[in-house]
Amino acid sequence: MQNLLIIGAGRSATVLINYILEQARQHNFFITVADADVTLAQQKVGNHPNGRAIWLDASKPNDRRDVINRHDVVVSLLPPQMHLEVAQDCIALGKHMVTASYVSKQVFRLGDEARQRALVFMNELGLDPGIDHMSAMQRIHAIRKQGGKITAFYSYTGGLVAPESDDNPWHYKFSWNPRNVVLAGQGTAQFLENGNLKYIPYRRLFRQYRLVEIPDMGEWEVYANRDSLLYREAYGLADIQTLFRGTIRHRGFCDAWNALVRIGLTDATFPIVDSDKLTYQDLMEAFLGISQHTGSVKDRMAKLLETDPDSEIFKKLEWLGLFSKRRIKVKNATPALILEQLLLDKWALKPADKDMVIMQHVFEYELGRRKHKLTSTLVMKGNNGTDTAMSRLVGLPLGIFVKLLLLGKISTTGVNIPTMPEVYEPVMQELEQFGVKFTEREE
Amino acid sequence: MQNLLIIGAGRSATVLINYILEQARQHNFFITVADADVTLAQQKVGNHPNGRAIWLDASKPNDRRDVINRHDVVVSLLPPQMHLEVAQDCIALGKHMVTASYVSKQVFRLGDEARQRALVFMNELGLDPGIDHMSAMQRIHAIRKQGGKITAFYSYTGGLVAPESDDNPWHYKFSWNPRNVVLAGQGTAQFLENGNLKYIPYRRLFRQYRLVEIPDMGEWEVYANRDSLLYREAYGLADIQTLFRGTIRHRGFCDAWNALVRIGLTDATFPIVDSDKLTYQDLMEAFLGISQHTGSVKDRMAKLLETDPDSEIFKKLEWLGLFSKRRIKVKNATPALILEQLLLDKWALKPADKDMVIMQHVFEYELGRRKHKLTSTLVMKGNNGTDTAMSRLVGLPLGIFVKLLLLGKISTTGVNIPTMPEVYEPVMQELEQFGVKFTEREE
Repeated sequence: MQNLLIIGAGRSATVLINYILEQARQHNFFITVADADVTLAQQKVGNHPNGRAIWLDASKPNDRRDVINRHDVVVSLLPPQMHLEVAQDCIALGKHMVTASYVSKQVFRLGDEARQRALVFMNELGLDPGIDHMSAMQRIHAIRKQGGKITAFYSYTGGLVAPESDDNPWHYKFSWNPRNVVLAGQGTAQFLENGNLKYIPYRRLFRQYRLVEIPDMGEWEVYANRDSLLYREAYGLADIQTLFRGTIRHRGFCDAWNALVRIGLTDATFPIVDSDKLTYQDLMEAFLGISQHTGSVKDRMAKLLETDPDSEIFKKLEWLGLFSKRRIKVKNATPALILEQLLLDKWALKPADKDMVIMQHVFEYELGRRKHKLTSTLVMKGNNGTDTAMSRLVGLPLGIFVKLLLLGKISTTGVNIPTMPEVYEPVMQELEQFGVKFTEREE
Repeated sequence: MQNLLIIGAGRSATVLINYILEQARQHNFFITVADADVTLAQQKVGNHPNGRAIWLDASKPNDRRDVINRHDVVVSLLPPQMHLEVAQDCIALGKHMVTASYVSKQVFRLGDEARQRALVFMNELGLDPGIDHMSAMQRIHAIRKQGGKITAFYSYTGGLVAPESDDNPWHYKFSWNPRNVVLAGQGTAQFLENGNLKYIPYRRLFRQYRLVEIPDMGEWEVYANRDSLLYREAYGLADIQTLFRGTIRHRGFCDAWNALVRIGLTDATFPIVDSDKLTYQDLMEAFLGISQHTGSVKDRMAKLLETDPDSEIFKKLEWLGLFSKRRIKVKNATPALILEQLLLDKWALKPADKDMVIMQHVFEYELGRRKHKLTSTLVMKGNNGTDTAMSRLVGLPLGIFVKLLLLGKISTTGVNIPTMPEVYEPVMQELEQFGVKFTEREE
């Protein structure tokens, strides 16, 4: 019997646990779900004969090592900064390790040791990162096999709300980590265009968005991710001329979000003292600064933002309640945290709401002296506010990969991301059974 | 004989060393100047019988403690992050300590220990911070003594170029740390206006400047410092309604600097790979991002900045050479470092150039049921590019205070900044002999 340890029983664990428990009896797996909240872990495991829940404070090295040592494969769903310690344990104890998170430099440096010990350390096995790597590599390898030369690669992903559940002026609801949405894009975005590096600083990011056509779904806004060049080597695209990764939002979103950024509401670097004694309108007043002395807060803010109080942008701000006299709920909070708390309420998926994930890759390549363009698109909707497309698309690749690993079907040792056929072929194939299907268009 | 140790013989040490050596024979002081560059230290000490230069790598704890232990008072001119270790040594070895730097939280926490050991740890003894504290506290205490109630306090400082040496379109030259000028304002500025906290995020900071009249010097621009509230308690102004600290710049500076910020040139968070292979024009092209596809780099950048290629803003950018085909000199540098290196050249004080420091405090107060306004202004020019007003105004307060301390005239123990009469009265009085005189205007 193969023993799997899943550390962390939070929201992102549900689909993985359900999937792997369903596979457990057939393949003779035993699954331990460890969490500091053992009741939560117990709920997720249920009464399954091949599973159990245990209590674990993963920050205690001895406890953690004890538990890891009794398993063959470890999935870490801990906060990213804890993966390194788990990885070091897995190296020391000779265990395979799987995560859905970005590979940190420190974890990356364990690659040689993992390889020497014939250990599989696979990361970035969710949606983005995860399915983006696998679906892109499938097509990149296919184009190469035909003899094509890829000149441009654009990749866009959005975690969105399905049109049938879209009932707010932002046309957006949270299907994943709200904090990441609030802080998205801080720094300077980098990408490659016609062989030249391009930079967009945060202050221009939500102004310089692109419009992208999604087949049967109309036009969407896309703003640049910070990391477009990150995978140039990993994808084998060292000579590519244009490489752009971006995030998909509904039309009108970026201009309105840019207004929040301009006001200063995405700043996470300083606390507003006694913020719970302020109303949202007080907060707006505080951000008006000087030199706007007459008129209502709303009128003065419109002036500051060089827009009209009746504009679409302003309607979105008002709908959030930013000019209301309701009290802010959090104390000594940063502007970003105040905004996050407000949005958590306003942008919540309701129980019957459906989310929607869109992922689109566009490849431009030369083949037989002709220029080709391949557009590959995934659109997937959730069933309701709990069984979301997002949670399936993050959890299933993890689950399928872990099954393959437990069955001894993975031979790529070392610290990796899923760019190799032995991973993406079976994972993408099985994902199709769950409705994860890219539609393709050639031009 | 009293023994003084000065750690660090760099640019900011010259005036202090000269001043204290001049006082040494009369008062029986002996001065040791310690630096990792012993030649530099030797140059500064010269052949003075009451001084010597020694070699010291201050990062080596044992060496550092040996040297500290042989002195009575230590002046640390080391980089700010090293003050804590020196302070811990001074606590352990029972030595007084003096710096011109901001008090870090860690150093502040040593206050009780310093007091228990009857040690004087005085900090922020330069110009800003330094003379700003002392000159403000003189007037705050004087207004209070009359029975006045201070309702507003504005304080502005600028390290500038004197009009007679002002020969560039920015009307600015460096008289102090260029890096601080390039990175100034990042984060969110906070101040108090009519009892309300006000915030200005970086992206609006150089747009929302104030115009301030300096007597006989015309109108200047002032942008908000990050830290206006920092000294509310230290100055005894807990009830004040308006508290604003800012930095003075020539008319036209802020709009043009804002253009550099908008382009993205003040970002110090990521390196531009192979930046030494790019020209400045290439760099501008990289920051243009997408969606501006026709016209020269200059025309497209003007469009991005919503200005005219013939505007004053654009003349300043062109004068810097940002659209030239000259190579960038630094490798793998952040945008901020590339800008700093460019400005170092363009904004250098020439040997015959005079710098100019302006400091102005404005107090609004109620006295005898009438409203008063007191404006207190210092304008000081340097003699040339080496003997600058800036270096004198940073070095002299340090020197005068150290003399007082060596003569046993300072009784305030613990970790402090110079807000108390026993410090500011003799220091400000002696500074007058060096031409440091605030002129006052009552309204």
